[in-house]
Amino acid sequence: MQFESSDIKAMDARRRAGMINSVSGFKSANLIGTSNAKGQTNLAIMSSAVHLGSSPPLLALVIRPSNDQHHTLANILDSGCYSINHVTSTIVEQAHQTAARYPAGISEFDATGLTPLWHEGFGAPMVAEAGVKLGLSLREHHELAINGTNMVIGEVVFVEVPAGCIAEDGCIDLAGAGTVALSGLDTYYQAVAPKRMAYAKTHLPPRVLSDASGQ
Amino acid sequence: MQFESSDIKAMDARRRAGMINSVSGFKSANLIGTSNAKGQTNLAIMSSAVHLGSSPPLLALVIRPSNDQHHTLANILDSGCYSINHVTSTIVEQAHQTAARYPAGISEFDATGLTPLWHEGFGAPMVAEAGVKLGLSLREHHELAINGTNMVIGEVVFVEVPAGCIAEDGCIDLAGAGTVALSGLDTYYQAVAPKRMAYAKTHLPPRVLSDASGQ
Repeated sequence: MQFESSDIKAMDARRRAGMINSVSGFKSANLIGTSNAKGQTNLAIMSSAVHLGSSPPLLALVIRPSNDQHHTLANILDSGCYSINHVTSTIVEQAHQTAARYPAGISEFDATGLTPLWHEGFGAPMVAEAGVKLGLSLREHHELAINGTNMVIGEVVFVEVPAGCIAEDGCIDLAGAGTVALSGLDTYYQAVAPKRMAYAKTHLPPRVLSDASGQ
Repeated sequence: MQFESSDIKAMDARRRAGMINSVSGFKSANLIGTSNAKGQTNLAIMSSAVHLGSSPPLLALVIRPSNDQHHTLANILDSGCYSINHVTSTIVEQAHQTAARYPAGISEFDATGLTPLWHEGFGAPMVAEAGVKLGLSLREHHELAINGTNMVIGEVVFVEVPAGCIAEDGCIDLAGAGTVALSGLDTYYQAVAPKRMAYAKTHLPPRVLSDASGQ
């Protein structure tokens, strides 16, 4: 099926949001943990983490100006730090529930039953039940004039990986760590049958290092 | 396992890149199709597409200043348009091979055997063999001072979805369309067993709309 610009503009807003949220392909599903100056915690699911570079280790996060992500942004700008926690298949339901518009006085940790976990000397809570967990220190904040979204750039200051899920070469076994992939706004997938490729060279054909897909 | 900032800094560069490229979770795997003013085509695999908003429909793409993505950026800035094409499990090998550093005179289409497909009136080639295919019109370009990466913001001007892979509510069935998820730099996964959640409300518990995971 084909949709031109005029078709996209003419769509019902919810249908357009459904389509445009899925056109980029699979997304990460992360819980962003923050705290305000009073120690009030907040937890929000986001799918917009993107790698900027590994030296220094930087990730960007696109935060939408809607109500439910407003507290997260305010806490990040206030405290200068936040955690990124991988949603695993065992906590999909609680993780998704953090998207509900709880008022500022209610922590999504309490509302969903997920457990805050603190890292020595770091001012934002992680999620105990999550898989891979990261601490980030705010480095830059940009408001994107084009549509009022916010881009937050953070440096990774610590990484916690479940036992046995990191290889000698540094690569994390996301499937082994239980991490799920997100499609659109609400559909969570498990990942299977990895095919690992060798570093691409112009003078060599593609070389498969390992293939569990059976293809 | 736990890695502090000092551990991350002390890592061998390749190992650090492996880890930091996988800490954000699963990523999209897209082929970016472009053309220069002479009609010379270019194709590059990227994992950094991120949703900015659906009205207008905007996606951002982070492009690294390394050699192999330099031609793509130059073509986008020159022509003002580019295509985003989902890597499917059937073209993982060719798609990964586009990351090799071919010289400017060689099109990755020719080098990998993937087929350029043109959309009426649009100046960048799509990939015939890909799943979901998008055309984007350049809206903004930012160089991120923090590490010299480039962020390109584009408006989606057309969307092509394989038959039967889009629901009434606009959501695309990525698994049905064959789209794969990427982990790190080189590991491609199929996605299975989706669990779809209802819109989260504060006064209702999490509600599973459908669950193929058997959990």
